[in-house]
Amino acid sequence: MEVSVMANKKKAKAKKSRYVYFFGDGKADGKAVMKNLLGGKGANLAEMTNMGIPVPAGFTISTEVCNYYYKNGKKYPSELKKDVLSALTRVEGVMKAKFGDSANPLLVSVRSGARVSMPGMMDTVLNLGLNDVTVRGLVSQTKNERFSYDAYRRFVQMFGDVVLGLKPKGKDEHDPFEIIMDKIKKEKGIKLDIELTTEDLKRLVRLYKEEIKNKTGKVFPEDPYEQLWAAIGAVFESWNNERAITYRRINKIPEEWGTAVNVQSMVFGNMGDDSGTGVAFTRDPASGEKEFYGEYLLNAQGEDVVAGIRTPQPIEDLKKHLAKPYGELLKIYKKLEKHYREMQDMEFTIQKGKLWMLQTRNGKRTGLAAIKIAVDMVEEGLISTDEALRRIEPEQLNQLLRPIFDINGKKSAIKEGRLLTKGLNAGPGAACGRVVFNAVDAEEWAKRGEKVVLVRIETSPEDISGMHAAVGILTARGGMTSHAALVARQMGKVCVAGCGTLEIDYSKRQMSVKGVAIKEGDYISIDGTTGEVINGRVETKPSEILQVLLEKKLDPKKSEMYKLFDKLMKWADKKRVLKIRTNADQGDQASVALAFGAEGIGLCRTEHMFFGEGKIEAMREMILADDAEGRKKALNKLLPIQKNDFAGIFRVMKGLPVTIRTLDPPLHEFLPHEESEIKKMADFMGISPGKVKSKIEYLKELNPMLGLRGCRLGILYPEITAMQARAIFEAACQVQKEGIKVLPEIMIPLVGHVNELKQQASVVRRTAEEVMGKVGQKIKYTVGTMIELPRAALTADEVAVVAEFFSFGTNDLTQTTYGLSRDDAGKFLYYYYEKAILKEDPFQTIDQDGVGQLMQIGVKKGRTTRKDLKIGICGEHGGESKSVEFCNKIGLNYVSCSPFRVPIARLAAAQAVAKANK
Amino acid sequence: MEVSVMANKKKAKAKKSRYVYFFGDGKADGKAVMKNLLGGKGANLAEMTNMGIPVPAGFTISTEVCNYYYKNGKKYPSELKKDVLSALTRVEGVMKAKFGDSANPLLVSVRSGARVSMPGMMDTVLNLGLNDVTVRGLVSQTKNERFSYDAYRRFVQMFGDVVLGLKPKGKDEHDPFEIIMDKIKKEKGIKLDIELTTEDLKRLVRLYKEEIKNKTGKVFPEDPYEQLWAAIGAVFESWNNERAITYRRINKIPEEWGTAVNVQSMVFGNMGDDSGTGVAFTRDPASGEKEFYGEYLLNAQGEDVVAGIRTPQPIEDLKKHLAKPYGELLKIYKKLEKHYREMQDMEFTIQKGKLWMLQTRNGKRTGLAAIKIAVDMVEEGLISTDEALRRIEPEQLNQLLRPIFDINGKKSAIKEGRLLTKGLNAGPGAACGRVVFNAVDAEEWAKRGEKVVLVRIETSPEDISGMHAAVGILTARGGMTSHAALVARQMGKVCVAGCGTLEIDYSKRQMSVKGVAIKEGDYISIDGTTGEVINGRVETKPSEILQVLLEKKLDPKKSEMYKLFDKLMKWADKKRVLKIRTNADQGDQASVALAFGAEGIGLCRTEHMFFGEGKIEAMREMILADDAEGRKKALNKLLPIQKNDFAGIFRVMKGLPVTIRTLDPPLHEFLPHEESEIKKMADFMGISPGKVKSKIEYLKELNPMLGLRGCRLGILYPEITAMQARAIFEAACQVQKEGIKVLPEIMIPLVGHVNELKQQASVVRRTAEEVMGKVGQKIKYTVGTMIELPRAALTADEVAVVAEFFSFGTNDLTQTTYGLSRDDAGKFLYYYYEKAILKEDPFQTIDQDGVGQLMQIGVKKGRTTRKDLKIGICGEHGGESKSVEFCNKIGLNYVSCSPFRVPIARLAAAQAVAKANK
Repeated sequence: MEVSVMANKKKAKAKKSRYVYFFGDGKADGKAVMKNLLGGKGANLAEMTNMGIPVPAGFTISTEVCNYYYKNGKKYPSELKKDVLSALTRVEGVMKAKFGDSANPLLVSVRSGARVSMPGMMDTVLNLGLNDVTVRGLVSQTKNERFSYDAYRRFVQMFGDVVLGLKPKGKDEHDPFEIIMDKIKKEKGIKLDIELTTEDLKRLVRLYKEEIKNKTGKVFPEDPYEQLWAAIGAVFESWNNERAITYRRINKIPEEWGTAVNVQSMVFGNMGDDSGTGVAFTRDPASGEKEFYGEYLLNAQGEDVVAGIRTPQPIEDLKKHLAKPYGELLKIYKKLEKHYREMQDMEFTIQKGKLWMLQTRNGKRTGLAAIKIAVDMVEEGLISTDEALRRIEPEQLNQLLRPIFDINGKKSAIKEGRLLTKGLNAGPGAACGRVVFNAVDAEEWAKRGEKVVLVRIETSPEDISGMHAAVGILTARGGMTSHAALVARQMGKVCVAGCGTLEIDYSKRQMSVKGVAIKEGDYISIDGTTGEVINGRVETKPSEILQVLLEKKLDPKKSEMYKLFDKLMKWADKKRVLKIRTNADQGDQASVALAFGAEGIGLCRTEHMFFGEGKIEAMREMILADDAEGRKKALNKLLPIQKNDFAGIFRVMKGLPVTIRTLDPPLHEFLPHEESEIKKMADFMGISPGKVKSKIEYLKELNPMLGLRGCRLGILYPEITAMQARAIFEAACQVQKEGIKVLPEIMIPLVGHVNELKQQASVVRRTAEEVMGKVGQKIKYTVGTMIELPRAALTADEVAVVAEFFSFGTNDLTQTTYGLSRDDAGKFLYYYYEKAILKEDPFQTIDQDGVGQLMQIGVKKGRTTRKDLKIGICGEHGGESKSVEFCNKIGLNYVSCSPFRVPIARLAAAQAVAKANK
Repeated sequence: MEVSVMANKKKAKAKKSRYVYFFGDGKADGKAVMKNLLGGKGANLAEMTNMGIPVPAGFTISTEVCNYYYKNGKKYPSELKKDVLSALTRVEGVMKAKFGDSANPLLVSVRSGARVSMPGMMDTVLNLGLNDVTVRGLVSQTKNERFSYDAYRRFVQMFGDVVLGLKPKGKDEHDPFEIIMDKIKKEKGIKLDIELTTEDLKRLVRLYKEEIKNKTGKVFPEDPYEQLWAAIGAVFESWNNERAITYRRINKIPEEWGTAVNVQSMVFGNMGDDSGTGVAFTRDPASGEKEFYGEYLLNAQGEDVVAGIRTPQPIEDLKKHLAKPYGELLKIYKKLEKHYREMQDMEFTIQKGKLWMLQTRNGKRTGLAAIKIAVDMVEEGLISTDEALRRIEPEQLNQLLRPIFDINGKKSAIKEGRLLTKGLNAGPGAACGRVVFNAVDAEEWAKRGEKVVLVRIETSPEDISGMHAAVGILTARGGMTSHAALVARQMGKVCVAGCGTLEIDYSKRQMSVKGVAIKEGDYISIDGTTGEVINGRVETKPSEILQVLLEKKLDPKKSEMYKLFDKLMKWADKKRVLKIRTNADQGDQASVALAFGAEGIGLCRTEHMFFGEGKIEAMREMILADDAEGRKKALNKLLPIQKNDFAGIFRVMKGLPVTIRTLDPPLHEFLPHEESEIKKMADFMGISPGKVKSKIEYLKELNPMLGLRGCRLGILYPEITAMQARAIFEAACQVQKEGIKVLPEIMIPLVGHVNELKQQASVVRRTAEEVMGKVGQKIKYTVGTMIELPRAALTADEVAVVAEFFSFGTNDLTQTTYGLSRDDAGKFLYYYYEKAILKEDPFQTIDQDGVGQLMQIGVKKGRTTRKDLKIGICGEHGGESKSVEFCNKIGLNYVSCSPFRVPIARLAAAQAVAKANK
């Protein structure tokens, strides 16, 4: 009976707190696992409260209310009002203060809090509850009139900006309150806020309220409850402000998640020298070292730390000033890390000697730190290797492969005061070079062997070739998704973007930062991993991993970084099911990939072998030939070249599988298009330019992507396929004779109908038999096909009758499934992301619903015909972690990617298994 | 006990005759339904035998042997030899003659016989069994030495040609035996074969045998058994000769069907004036009239009828010469037609007064005859309406819609001896015009209002525009699949091709037929339905159907043709489940389609409305606008034009559904590309040509098919969709106010992701609400989408959440599923058909395995979301009979096709049901 009453009570309580979750005084309705409902901040505040950690009391309005709000014409559930008021009463009880009380007023903050952190994207209101009456209560409580009116003027400004919408929208607008503040400072001939007197602050409050009246026509609400509801509404509204929408789009956060709202008692770090505020990490977020790391400011509010006007102190120094709260902080951070089994990023405030924790969350970290922390935590017994594999974003491995600064060089540069500024870490890695201010110069200087850093206010498509020529890119404007940032990441260039403090004068060919002028040709060094911009030279060197693996200049035992990498890769290799291959056309690329752990070549594009001096001419001769005889004559010139290339690859790969794709691109790609080039080619071939032109004209296609290419070439001109097969098998026989194993897999591209494959496979097999018979060698080989057209996937059961293996060509499969030309889509796809019509670029991440569905059909049907059909992927998706996870899920045998992405693919493949196991 | 012994005997017999099926003396192992096994000829010989009709005894070697032969390295099943010999013995018994006997030798023919007739494609050997010994037996049996040696020399020639491979392969080669014959004739100064003496024939036999020795190195086999096996092998071989392969490809006959071989006792129609041979039809194959129709030759062999050297007599005349066998023939033809319930095409031979039937099969016929016969047979109670619907090839209806000759005009022209010659009936219909000999003249003459017939030796792609300008096309060379024939059928042009007797002299601008010269500018008349070429003018007129339905000049009661058509269409409409709609962009097209029985518009392309004076300018202004405001301004000019067009269509359609597709083609299609046109446009708009050019440059795409088109336009420029929606709903409201019902269905093209549709649908709905609200009218309407990208079909369940209907755009769906640009594929697809990589043009007939599979996925998934989702097809496949059958099978609601194909679609839709019911 007792039990059932308890259960009923619990139910009743659970029902009651459906929308509002209280926390405070060691008890909370929520807990850490309720992130979806309470947001990250709210869930962790509840968790800390339950752990007995001092957290100012408050309550969280759940994300369900956000969804309700947007689904119901911006109305709240009817129960909400009562629930909020009742939670507020509980807060008053715990904090022993009363909301709106003239003697002892409770002040609160109102903050957003989504399932994942969206730093700075949504709105916050602090010091809420102040008005002309309660401010006097605050004075009497704190015995500090200046502090109280400072808090009041901050509140009015914040309320005006955030709730009443006076916050500037464009870059060219100014905050109306800042304008007033500046005017008063000017009048009084002062510079710092701190120089304002209490009277100044009181005047500001008045002026701010007048400004609000003038700008909005509304009177500033003195009623704290009115303030509260307005602030809650503003935070919900901010879920759909433009910045938040953009951030969600970039970070692929669904709109449906919504935000929670946290209403929490204010504590103040600016109540004197026994107060302070700071942020801390349980481990170093840059290096991952296991040491308490953080910064604080005495007598300051959180926003002061962020604003960067005063320089914060390292956290160790807090011990000297406030030993007791520091001691508590040490205990708390250890407790939190152990509890969460993850590196924590914490915010705290000390109010008159009392430590309050305001936030804890998993800390962001660099790639290096992510790996170091994960590996260390495994060794400390905190987490399993599976957990470690799950935690590292495979893309972060990229950072370990980029050039780095000499660590001592950078330290001393900073000591020498050469750190100019910090921008956005838009393209990881380190670069050092001479400054140029336009793309043309970048190209010219680079041509004469100079390393240059291209500095632009912002970049545009015309700068592409200059960006390509530069070792690094630095821009004054633009965020993480600006043109510069996007292109740099795509190119793998070091990039620091959006350096607001940079003043660039193109006409003077000069830039300046805080008075330091840097002219064209001067050296700067930029760290794209941290965003730092350093005056003068800092030596860079290849990543330690590369020094060990590729250059073999560094002893693996001497590199901590390599050891971490190696440990992680070994765990990954043990875990993963997918094999990892590489896309490589030449022996040297294959060597790099092997060093990175590739287990074969998944795509060797033979057409790349046709470019370059002495090859392109023969190729053109072949294209211009009038008949099969003429083509054969030209192909005979190409034969030894291809054979040589294949032999080189076979020697490197030593019996690992090498998938060679027969000629794929439309022939016109091999012909010149400039008048002068046409003339040169015609002269070289001893024919008229007219003949060249008419061939070019003949080969012109309306939609080359859907034209005469892929196996269609080999079907029309079987002599091309025959030559390629001959080159492959002659090379294979030769290398095998040298005592090196070979395993060629010949892959026919762009097959739509099994008969196409049948015809091409027969050319390959016939040639193979002929070559092997002649040379007297037996080569083990297979013939398979790309699955890159919807029809091939849909009829995979028929295709597999002939194909001994499949390889998904997801680039073309995406183009045809979506009816979207990758080359042309740039003009409108950006708009699709902007309007959230598409959430992800289907050319980067496999579109699982469409393209992925076809892949699944292909796998299923292919394996109904051949139970153990080997299936891989060689599109660019093969090196993208989410796509790798998908490939694992649908049962592919391998993924193939570019050499430098092999480690990423290895980790992603392991993660896929570790995630599936979870 | 008795029964079971019988059964066992039957089994044993069935087993024994697995490969060889005897027929003769009223008993046959096979029957008509065994066509797959025995081929058409063999099955019908067996059937006739069983019916008691006089058929020379023989046996059929089944098609299974053909397949065995090709699958087993050209070897026969081991039982075959014994089976053939035992069947041969039975034949000897029935025919009372012995194979290879010196006194009374049995002679046989060895003929091919596939499941469907492949006239002249495979080989035949007659008079087999003759050698220097048996020929004397034939002499003594027939008492006719000349006849016997003529048979012998024919046999040696045929054996040399067919079995030993001396038959000329190219057009420029001559038959070596004909050369010898010509030499002898020349020596003797004679012209006709009949003038050769017995001695000449004996000498020819010797010379032929020597020629065989010289040419092949082999001695002519005197052993009849050796002859027989060699001939059987040659017939099987001929299944895979080049002509046969091409014929199979064109007629879509699977290679796996194989051919049977018929070995049959010879009977001779050339044993004197009591002998003869002929062909006959149970009804007139041209008009379908119910009258016995045929031709015969006295004292002749079958090949003489075909060769056309002697002119055959009409069948009625046989009564005068050979009344008894004629009487038998009349009985037999009636018996056969009744038995087969189909019009029969028969071959017969009369040997010394005795009638032998050599073949019966369903007769080929014109479209008109097909309909007439089917309708008549229903009325005679011979067949059901279902059977009638199944029998008419829907494409044949086309013939009823083409212009026709005035029947009396043509009759009198032929009476006057103006029939010049006959060629292949490559493009049905009648044409009369002045002769021109090249495409340029054709265009020029046509421009000044002349009707011209383009006469060419053969046509090539350069002649296209001339062919387009001509009312008819006549060629001297090329078959039913020549360039001229293909293009003409595609264009719907009247064409007579491959008129071998035509001599054309381009330099003299003159052609001549059998000495009659026709100069440029002279009138000729050609009948593409019969292949006749007539000198001078014969009046043409529109088909009677069009005169009734469209021109309303002919009383439906007065046209036999219309009555047939109408009867058939009524049966079809009763039978079919699919609705038939039309693709029409203008009111007049819609009217035509309605007259032909359309039940709605399935595709109204709005872009066609933008071409033409006064429209294209506003469209261009829209494209050149710099912003949404500029676009809206230009769109406002287009609004009234579109509205007017829509109103016109709504008025015609009177409440039938009208599916309107929003703007689809890439914008650059609306811009000029010639320098002078650009200048004109720039002047008109008062801007610089540079601006026009830079816009053209900007809109240029690498793969426009996969670029900025379809809904992507509307998404980027929602104002375009809004304008179109406004035009539709303003027009709808206006017409509804006039008291005419309207039912618009707005269709969004090129949707790949449901979010695209969601966005466009919301623009349409918003605009609809706005217009309806303003006008105060309520319009019933739906918003749906084209399914023309693989992704749309694959995610049809999601798309159907928004789409209220689907319409398969199979043109684009085929392009994307196959990765094949229809515009570019011409350069290589021909090769695909030639090499049998593809059997059918996927742009003409739905590729059921690939594209069709996607359609099935789309239908299934779409209807899981919306159980009663209306689904149609508006690609060009919607008017092609096989595709219509497929659409019926997968449960579509309607097909939509061009107005003139509506009757074809009606019949095809009915046929689909009738076939499924069978």
